[in-house]
Amino acid sequence: MSALDAVLRRIDQDIDQCLERLFALLRIASVSTDPAYKEQCRTAAERVAADLRSIGFEASLRATEGHPVVVGKSNGASGPHVLFYGHYDVQPVDPLNLWKTPPFEPRIETLPDGRKIIVARGACDDKGQAMTFIEACRAYKAVTGKLPLNITTMIEGEEECGSQHLFKFVRDNAAEFKLDLALVCDTAMWNQETPAVTTSLRGLVYEEVTITCADRDLHSGLFGGAAQNPLRLLAKILGAMWGDDGRVVIPGFYDGVKELPADIKADLAALNLTPEEFLGPIGLKQPAGEKGRLLLEQITTRPTAEINGMVGGYTGEGAKTVIPGQASAKVSFRLVGEQEPEKIRDNFRAFVRARLPADCKVEFANFGLAPALQLSFDNPALTKARTVLAQEWGRKAVAVGAGGSIPIVADFKHVLGMDSLLVGFALDDDRVHSPNEKFDLKCFHKGIRSWARILDALAQ
Amino acid sequence: MSALDAVLRRIDQDIDQCLERLFALLRIASVSTDPAYKEQCRTAAERVAADLRSIGFEASLRATEGHPVVVGKSNGASGPHVLFYGHYDVQPVDPLNLWKTPPFEPRIETLPDGRKIIVARGACDDKGQAMTFIEACRAYKAVTGKLPLNITTMIEGEEECGSQHLFKFVRDNAAEFKLDLALVCDTAMWNQETPAVTTSLRGLVYEEVTITCADRDLHSGLFGGAAQNPLRLLAKILGAMWGDDGRVVIPGFYDGVKELPADIKADLAALNLTPEEFLGPIGLKQPAGEKGRLLLEQITTRPTAEINGMVGGYTGEGAKTVIPGQASAKVSFRLVGEQEPEKIRDNFRAFVRARLPADCKVEFANFGLAPALQLSFDNPALTKARTVLAQEWGRKAVAVGAGGSIPIVADFKHVLGMDSLLVGFALDDDRVHSPNEKFDLKCFHKGIRSWARILDALAQ
Repeated sequence: MSALDAVLRRIDQDIDQCLERLFALLRIASVSTDPAYKEQCRTAAERVAADLRSIGFEASLRATEGHPVVVGKSNGASGPHVLFYGHYDVQPVDPLNLWKTPPFEPRIETLPDGRKIIVARGACDDKGQAMTFIEACRAYKAVTGKLPLNITTMIEGEEECGSQHLFKFVRDNAAEFKLDLALVCDTAMWNQETPAVTTSLRGLVYEEVTITCADRDLHSGLFGGAAQNPLRLLAKILGAMWGDDGRVVIPGFYDGVKELPADIKADLAALNLTPEEFLGPIGLKQPAGEKGRLLLEQITTRPTAEINGMVGGYTGEGAKTVIPGQASAKVSFRLVGEQEPEKIRDNFRAFVRARLPADCKVEFANFGLAPALQLSFDNPALTKARTVLAQEWGRKAVAVGAGGSIPIVADFKHVLGMDSLLVGFALDDDRVHSPNEKFDLKCFHKGIRSWARILDALAQ
Repeated sequence: MSALDAVLRRIDQDIDQCLERLFALLRIASVSTDPAYKEQCRTAAERVAADLRSIGFEASLRATEGHPVVVGKSNGASGPHVLFYGHYDVQPVDPLNLWKTPPFEPRIETLPDGRKIIVARGACDDKGQAMTFIEACRAYKAVTGKLPLNITTMIEGEEECGSQHLFKFVRDNAAEFKLDLALVCDTAMWNQETPAVTTSLRGLVYEEVTITCADRDLHSGLFGGAAQNPLRLLAKILGAMWGDDGRVVIPGFYDGVKELPADIKADLAALNLTPEEFLGPIGLKQPAGEKGRLLLEQITTRPTAEINGMVGGYTGEGAKTVIPGQASAKVSFRLVGEQEPEKIRDNFRAFVRARLPADCKVEFANFGLAPALQLSFDNPALTKARTVLAQEWGRKAVAVGAGGSIPIVADFKHVLGMDSLLVGFALDDDRVHSPNEKFDLKCFHKGIRSWARILDALAQ
């Protein structure tokens, strides 16, 4: 029997104890955004550190201006040195009345379809997912007496409130964390049967645009027809951002956007994500993005523009014949490939300014400027991970893009120069951030086995 | 000496007593919108009725579900029978701290340029203006013992809160008030030297449009690119309402819009209203309406479309990457000539629906549907009024349009089939609806003289 086989068998034998250790962590109400839970956050960090120490890591709580970061180090092996990133903090639980059982009293429930699920706040995001990695390490240690490669962990406590202090921590300790590869367990599978590696995360440019025309609100009876109306200007300018083919027409917008490799695109097409499946549950039918693109491309590997908010004039009940002096909108762009956030921002601002009458003013504020992240499709770690995930799950592992952003992963790339391999076992119905969050027991169990296989493969 | 000359001389001799009677009315805090002032409104109505009785009118307070209407009747003369409309109620006074003296303690102030002004809430709107008519009648009665024509008055107490109950009152008593011509004193002069007759009032269609896409708010990372965004649709659709020439491109929008007669347009051009003069004070420079039109046309005799309000998505501080499920806008149209409100409403709705993706929904609510009002330029009463106003003021009286609406005047036309002659003496700097409202003493005095001349001319 190979070492890996022994490790996998150990995981199967030990699964009840794995669950107990996870439950112990889930019982700690480590809600990071609420200062009332500061102590619980520290308790959760200490619990994670203790777990790491129990399998031979040198572990410590590293102070930040917010909640501590659990850094664990297990060196001395041959092969590459990886950084594992996860987080021990969780989302708030409100509305509490929608929980069927208390959120910090984890339990196993059996669904009508026979699936067993772990129910608790953090069961999936991210305690359950982070523990899949730690338990894989534990099994290795138990079977072989050591880990198959050098591992540093960075389990933070502020992911759910924006990783506010982690950015500085990473910059301040860049030399320490600039390793060969980051492993992240905070993403999803394609579906219950199909494992996935997230190979891209869209970047984000978030702008607020405020247009001022008259220096006060005006009566539309008196001034209507002569005074510029900032809502009319916003509608006209922002409404012109898209062509009839759904493409963004801001000059230079697609600079740095590449086509997917043919094999990857074929994999995506084979997943056959239909509008009925994706949009049906939210009451829509027709994909709104670029014509001629897969729906899955539209939401993961193509850039977008959205108006996230807009307000001006009278918005109460009934009528008021006002021409507002000022109106504003929030506009964001999801970026992919090599799109440069600063250029997108500048081009958007120029697009607005070019359409503004000379006697009107515009002001911009930026609330986000993150480049996209793309793992090279020929990265050997990706190939290895896809291969062993397929072995574990019996299905080809897809390389998918994620529509959203994980800012700290961008920093791993842009500050530390390190790629990230994002493998996760969440499912679409996990109710992450919502009441009755759950994690499939099968995902937890096979997630541990998956990480054991990946660690083995990366050590080769 | 003609009777008119004697009447005018009487007005000059009696002006201090005229002022005293106006001051007595101004001391009554008849704020119609605030129930706390209900008694004061009644007191003001009684004061007006008493004034009317003192010059021979049969006057009574006619009940409505709101404040009473003062109806006065003076019949028995030969010639036409006119209806005089005005209102005894006033706007609230807040912010009170911005008043230099108490709003219901009228006083005379001399401005640096030598103008004497009457300062009080209602000094102009509309107590001062309404009293110019009543004092003209008083002088007639004093000099000739009778009025030169049959007059019915309708002095209401709810104009400042929408004339809510007057519409029913007029409908219920249509036979009584369906007379030869309505006279209205609630409008403005062109400027301090130039009298004006308001020959048109723009109509109004006011719509609220609500677009629903997904049945909930969405995360733009997850759904951005695939889910329709109601703000994007609103921006695109509403932004497309105007062509580059400033014309509204909704099909059929200009049906029923006529060109001004050449002489009237020449009069308007001669007034030479400049962008500096009209837009400068509010911080703008360039007229935003139809290209190739006089600024004065844009704001009075041409139809417009405006977005009066718009809201959707996240509008707080900072960023939220949301795609809203729903967004709404308030859109209004100022109408002129024979534009039909129902058609404009229907065409607007069709314009929106034609541009809506099949899986999105739109709902409309209407908050205004009033046709424009146009006094025929060859109405003999208009010609007479312009002639005698020129005699009084020494300047040609201009026929101007008003950008706003006076809904009850529309009812005079459409319910009673009666034209209205709108002559008023307000000035742009009267601070109507604002603290320190004023009425020039000269406007009050010459306003009385103007009405005496108009009554004389109409009786011919």
